[in-house]
Amino acid sequence: MDYYPEPIENLISEFAKLPSIGKRSAERLAISLVFEDDDKVNSFIEAIRLVKSTVKQCTICGNLTDGEICSVCSDRSRNGKLLCVVESVKDLIAIEKSGEFRGKYFVLGNLLSPIKNLELSDIVIDKLKNRVKDGVEEVILAISPTIEGEMTGIFIKEVLKEFDVVVTKIASGIPVGGNLEYFDGDTLFKALEDRREI
Amino acid sequence: MDYYPEPIENLISEFAKLPSIGKRSAERLAISLVFEDDDKVNSFIEAIRLVKSTVKQCTICGNLTDGEICSVCSDRSRNGKLLCVVESVKDLIAIEKSGEFRGKYFVLGNLLSPIKNLELSDIVIDKLKNRVKDGVEEVILAISPTIEGEMTGIFIKEVLKEFDVVVTKIASGIPVGGNLEYFDGDTLFKALEDRREI
Ligand SMILES: [Zn+2]
Ligand SMILES: [Zn+2]
Repeated sequence: MDYYPEPIENLISEFAKLPSIGKRSAERLAISLVFEDDDKVNSFIEAIRLVKSTVKQCTICGNLTDGEICSVCSDRSRNGKLLCVVESVKDLIAIEKSGEFRGKYFVLGNLLSPIKNLELSDIVIDKLKNRVKDGVEEVILAISPTIEGEMTGIFIKEVLKEFDVVVTKIASGIPVGGNLEYFDGDTLFKALEDRREI
Repeated sequence: MDYYPEPIENLISEFAKLPSIGKRSAERLAISLVFEDDDKVNSFIEAIRLVKSTVKQCTICGNLTDGEICSVCSDRSRNGKLLCVVESVKDLIAIEKSGEFRGKYFVLGNLLSPIKNLELSDIVIDKLKNRVKDGVEEVILAISPTIEGEMTGIFIKEVLKEFDVVVTKIASGIPVGGNLEYFDGDTLFKALEDRREI
């Protein structure tokens, strides 16, 4: 049974399609827009339109940009010999926020996943090879240490073996501030294996 | 420091203005729209536009409707002698979802709140009086049992004392200090059933 007028039901299902919005939030959002000033709703719509019409992925690395080339790729102070490979734009931003990495990026778009029937396309692989060919000395795989992440790492290592490039991956272990006892055996084993001198 | 192109930063702050959307969700939402098909984004925008252009509050009760009069008010099978007073449309919908209440509604829009400097306007009070005058035998206050809710109840009881009407309030089921809209249909039904005169 529908408790709302049809346009509201419709908007609720539109909101619920968005990531991290549950049914309850979708209802609250749809109702709130009814009570919002037209001006505010219009500027919300305009903000969406502007993103859709101007923001694309950087043709070099896959980061978001409102030009052709993103701010990281066009920053000459960054080290082009260091290429950080990430799954998604979200991961790239997470690393940027850490403020520590001064190299450049390559966004894969997805990981290898036989279960989800996902592969890395020839286009992506060729693009990565061309980047590496262009003076990269170290490829850092900043990929989640899941089974899919590990598979993807092994695949990329294989793909790049023709080049004179070091392939590394970010350390897995206990997150800073994390409580050791709450992490599983695999994580603890990795953390022990990747131990280093202090 | 901005990690995103300006149109994305802008959209993030627009999303973050919406209820129940934190900064992290706003980022996820803004990024996801970049990767969404234009068609899907357009139908999302159209859904918002349609709500803004067609959905208003019912002129009788304040419920949402895409006509003049809402589906509850125009339902002749419902008992017009029983008037349930609620704070918001959200609370009205929560009670409708319980499926047990067959009377009609009156949406206040807000509660009395000296702290937030909110009062019930003369327009709202006159509207409520006119509803009550029109053959209502019982006014059920289905208002969250907070301090503001209790104050509002006392005020409404006072306002309606000139009429030959019983004023009750929902009783058991809602913990004191709890927010009405978060409770399930059974709880709300109990609360309606256990209403008592104040
Ligand atoms: Zn780039
Ligand atoms: Zn109505």
